Amino acid sequence: MTQEQNGSVGIVVPQTLHFDTPLTLACGRALPEHDIIYETYGQLNADKSNGVLICHALSGHHHAAGIHHPDDRKPGWWDSCIGPGKPIDTNVFFVLSINNIGGCNGSTGPTAINPETGKPWGPDFPPLRCRDWVESQYLMMQHFGITQWAAIIGGSLGGMQAMRWALEHPDALRHCIVIASAMKLSAQNIAFNEIARRAITSDPNFFEGRYLEHNTLPRQGLALARMVGHITYLSEDGMKQKFGRELKTGNLTLGSGSDSDVEFEVESYLRYQGEAFSGSFDANTYLLMTKALDYYDLAREYNDDPAEAFSHATCSFMVISFTTDWRFAPARSREIVDALVAANKPVSYAQIEADHGHDAFLIPIPRYMDVFHAYMKRLKQELGHAL
Amino acid sequence: MTQEQNGSVGIVVPQTLHFDTPLTLACGRALPEHDIIYETYGQLNADKSNGVLICHALSGHHHAAGIHHPDDRKPGWWDSCIGPGKPIDTNVFFVLSINNIGGCNGSTGPTAINPETGKPWGPDFPPLRCRDWVESQYLMMQHFGITQWAAIIGGSLGGMQAMRWALEHPDALRHCIVIASAMKLSAQNIAFNEIARRAITSDPNFFEGRYLEHNTLPRQGLALARMVGHITYLSEDGMKQKFGRELKTGNLTLGSGSDSDVEFEVESYLRYQGEAFSGSFDANTYLLMTKALDYYDLAREYNDDPAEAFSHATCSFMVISFTTDWRFAPARSREIVDALVAANKPVSYAQIEADHGHDAFLIPIPRYMDVFHAYMKRLKQELGHAL
Repeated sequence: MTQEQNGSVGIVVPQTLHFDTPLTLACGRALPEHDIIYETYGQLNADKSNGVLICHALSGHHHAAGIHHPDDRKPGWWDSCIGPGKPIDTNVFFVLSINNIGGCNGSTGPTAINPETGKPWGPDFPPLRCRDWVESQYLMMQHFGITQWAAIIGGSLGGMQAMRWALEHPDALRHCIVIASAMKLSAQNIAFNEIARRAITSDPNFFEGRYLEHNTLPRQGLALARMVGHITYLSEDGMKQKFGRELKTGNLTLGSGSDSDVEFEVESYLRYQGEAFSGSFDANTYLLMTKALDYYDLAREYNDDPAEAFSHATCSFMVISFTTDWRFAPARSREIVDALVAANKPVSYAQIEADHGHDAFLIPIPRYMDVFHAYMKRLKQELGHAL
Repeated sequence: MTQEQNGSVGIVVPQTLHFDTPLTLACGRALPEHDIIYETYGQLNADKSNGVLICHALSGHHHAAGIHHPDDRKPGWWDSCIGPGKPIDTNVFFVLSINNIGGCNGSTGPTAINPETGKPWGPDFPPLRCRDWVESQYLMMQHFGITQWAAIIGGSLGGMQAMRWALEHPDALRHCIVIASAMKLSAQNIAFNEIARRAITSDPNFFEGRYLEHNTLPRQGLALARMVGHITYLSEDGMKQKFGRELKTGNLTLGSGSDSDVEFEVESYLRYQGEAFSGSFDANTYLLMTKALDYYDLAREYNDDPAEAFSHATCSFMVISFTTDWRFAPARSREIVDALVAANKPVSYAQIEADHGHDAFLIPIPRYMDVFHAYMKRLKQELGHAL
């Protein structure tokens, strides 16, 4: 099979599932009905024991692996880790990747029509918490008839969902793989998120979130928000290697009065990234997702004691961090590991040397892949696969 | 004297000096005339050998020490270091502190009237380089009849000016004190500055820099720019100690749909800081200053070899850095020290343990004060003062 040779799951077709029973949310309100868009890779086995759930991060979505069209230049966002022979080996596992509710890639979110008004939800979409995504994912699990995931895996905000699963539905997973994540955000992280939100809500085209009704988009604000995110997901060394202080034009335009032009490569790159994002992502979704991130606090209802929180878990854990990640620093991962050890839970931990900052979790760094592969081999053994 | 007892220079009155001969700038254009607002502390001695020039940072100004009115709640921005008995001891030194050209606190800058148009300069103000400030400061030196400064001292962008002095006018200073600075910005620093500029220029009230002609201010953009700066001038640990994840209201407003409210203390603090700044600082000045920062590259004209650059200096150097400063990290200061050592120049270096990030240079941290005091004692000895 070509697919196996190149390690790609090949062409995938997203599916959509409609849920017409109300989903009660942490805020007390309910979504009267909702859609979930998803992709699957690999085959569910006879006893449905080989399911792996992928939880996406802030700007992620269901398209994690493979391509949609033969001429797609870019595969899904985690194609480096999902596919035949890859750490999340689709020759062995059945992988489910969904777009969370509140998202803007096909699942019900602020751009969807509110059935009560006939207009887009916009700012009226209910506030979401990480646990709402877990409950929505739980409905998907039931749809597939799966009673226990082989693993739930996520990076960043995705890792936060995986940990929440381990507390809320301990019997529903055997392994929880938490990559570049944290039990709660730092004040600095909250501050960066606040700047991103402020950039969006200050955009004159934001119209208090009702931009779709005004046939416009707060593009500049969203681009700015993304630029802030982008800098903070990269490491200083990574940026230095990528851009240094390279000038776009090869020389300083000292004679010009128009100093506002883009002159350094890094400025050009950031503007491109920001603008590309602002054309493809929904501003209200960005607000919802960052608020869910800020509020996440694994141990809040457990006397602020992470060990007490994890005492409810029954699965095994793998925690991975990256040396230059300063948004979700290795110290945050070690706090998770310490809490798991204090709760007497099985946990493996790897800190990976990487120049790529927080973005490292998306990149096939050899030692990261080796560690990830090695852990996933245990899951294959549990499934009775010969290695 | 009360002033000596409390270590304050007391009440100071800013002065303004008008220069009516054109000042040619690095960009090739000239300022036909300009004003400099300044303050002085202490007395110039008979042979004019005790002068100390203070160079200010991005959002700084001439008001470095003392108070303007008896009921001022806050003294000048570097009152911790300037005054009787303080490291920059006004019982010994004559201290000059100016607002740089391009500034918005009284010296000629974008808010001043362009004599050719009768309107505010606004975006037509010439782009500035650090060396322009040095030349403008050189004119002030001549005005006071000083031929050699005992020291030129600056933090951050101020330190960059002090280093430029040492290369451009080597005989004009005996000591160069460079605090929390760098020989050039990193790509990450440029990126943060680009976000700040983008926030300003995206504000609908920016009007391509002609907001004064429209009787408005790009307040939201400037507030956002300041918020970005503020986060990055603090350390993560400093923010954690200051705010933790404290909630403003004491509880999470999970039931509310208005998720955009300020709920964490850190959000409230940042908004306050941003808004206060946006009412007192000029947006075009912010653009000018950050561009000067980005362009600064000490060794650009010296074959990119900092040691070759410093080979032109004849003064002694003191370099100070702070452990948690990640905008102007200790590694950047060590690069300065290494270049000075390679150029066989006398240099002292201190890395100070501090939780305050880049802002540490403004704070009277005991070891910082001790080190600063000790170095300044040498200058007093050179002046023949008994210790």
